[in-house]
Amino acid sequence: MNNKHIYKTRTRYSEIDGMKIVHNSNYLIYFEEARTDLVRANNYSYEQIEKDGFMFPISEIKLNFKNPIYYDELISVFTYLEYVKNFSLKFLYEIYKENNELACKGYTIHACLDKNSYKILEINDKLKSALKKYIIK
Amino acid sequence: MNNKHIYKTRTRYSEIDGMKIVHNSNYLIYFEEARTDLVRANNYSYEQIEKDGFMFPISEIKLNFKNPIYYDELISVFTYLEYVKNFSLKFLYEIYKENNELACKGYTIHACLDKNSYKILEINDKLKSALKKYIIK
Amino acid sequence: MNNKHIYKTRTRYSEIDGMKIVHNSNYLIYFEEARTDLVRANNYSYEQIEKDGFMFPISEIKLNFKNPIYYDELISVFTYLEYVKNFSLKFLYEIYKENNELACKGYTIHACLDKNSYKILEINDKLKSALKKYIIK
Amino acid sequence: MNNKHIYKTRTRYSEIDGMKIVHNSNYLIYFEEARTDLVRANNYSYEQIEKDGFMFPISEIKLNFKNPIYYDELISVFTYLEYVKNFSLKFLYEIYKENNELACKGYTIHACLDKNSYKILEINDKLKSALKKYIIK
Repeated sequence: MNNKHIYKTRTRYSEIDGMKIVHNSNYLIYFEEARTDLVRANNYSYEQIEKDGFMFPISEIKLNFKNPIYYDELISVFTYLEYVKNFSLKFLYEIYKENNELACKGYTIHACLDKNSYKILEINDKLKSALKKYIIK
Repeated sequence: MNNKHIYKTRTRYSEIDGMKIVHNSNYLIYFEEARTDLVRANNYSYEQIEKDGFMFPISEIKLNFKNPIYYDELISVFTYLEYVKNFSLKFLYEIYKENNELACKGYTIHACLDKNSYKILEINDKLKSALKKYIIK
Repeated sequence: MNNKHIYKTRTRYSEIDGMKIVHNSNYLIYFEEARTDLVRANNYSYEQIEKDGFMFPISEIKLNFKNPIYYDELISVFTYLEYVKNFSLKFLYEIYKENNELACKGYTIHACLDKNSYKILEINDKLKSALKKYIIK
Repeated sequence: MNNKHIYKTRTRYSEIDGMKIVHNSNYLIYFEEARTDLVRANNYSYEQIEKDGFMFPISEIKLNFKNPIYYDELISVFTYLEYVKNFSLKFLYEIYKENNELACKGYTIHACLDKNSYKILEINDKLKSALKKYIIK
């Protein structure tokens, strides 16, 4: 069984489009919130990552949409990882609607770079250990 | 002493601009979330307002910025009302930073319209009573 | 050789994040603008599509990031199609930076639904002929 | 007669909310685009302003909404200034719909700060002369 971090948020009126559903661009924002919440819940933070000299730009994103999300839904974003390699990592996401239906699945792949030189940098042990328990077996 | 509704939210990475502060357009989104949260906390909802045939378009907005808000701050939006008239109402907002400094003050004035005809409509008693305790004396 | 529709837009300050690059969520908005511009340039429009009773929700999105985009860059979005089937279509995108470097590649797959019943609907000839010349050989 | 800078942009699908009108937060983004376009058209730029060591944070915003803006409208933002003082300036905006109706009036007041110390700084002559012809008489 896998550990998945659960992040809950309520959809905002400004996130709804003319079809009265959450606009696709906001899913990427939910993913970002969910993975920063996962990191924060494990005693690390994006701010600290930056202070430690790292950045994690996204190299690839995929989303599969299953069911639309509406205004004012309390959604749950399940976040875990497929792998944490020396120079990259891959987050997996599932978003569930308030009624527990699957809304979306997706992933983001991130490179680990030196914040100043933009050169590839090895992921440090602090982040590796913060993420370890969320890696799928 | 006045009743002010308190809504808390955490600033998102996507809300930060190149100066590493929350971009001004997001304050309007925080205001919107805060007033919908106030309405929801008083057993009414934007969805129900729409079902009841009303809409509340904004006719005027003002914001005064005092201190910048940064990434990942847990901000508090205090929301109350200057008045609820028959055909319009005025929400007042104060946003406080995580360190309790005032970040911003502002207001939004809304007209009450019939959702279908777009004609001016009298605010119903259900909304008036939901909002009553937040009106400044 | 393929026909690719070119849509140009300038990146906005509000689209830049704390790393001073365009935030990933905005790429989906550029894709959307580019495909609506392609449709508009061929005498059809999203508004007309809706009047004709169709909707084209996205079922899948993929993005590969190559080079960051900065503030105030005049970017070019090349848009074309991998296929237009009876019930779905797949748009392909390449975004080029102002200096002509490739910033991003991606695609969106759309289903064709009846706007009212949400049932699968066959793509009409008007849209098929508007898109035909952009399908890769 | 006053010089007003005209900036044209097309409303995006992602800017439309559940009422099928442009969401209020986007007006602030149109204002920002319009004033940067004015500056750019006069041989200065936000990038150069930053290199010159200045920043112009907003201290006050006001918007008055007159008529809703819909999806895919080619809007025109008229921008000019009420004043350019030594340490602050005030931009005025009028947004017109594609059918030339007034959609919105508003203003933004900006302080001039040193980019590094955040202390008040006198607006330089380069910017003063770029803006001069747009100040109302």
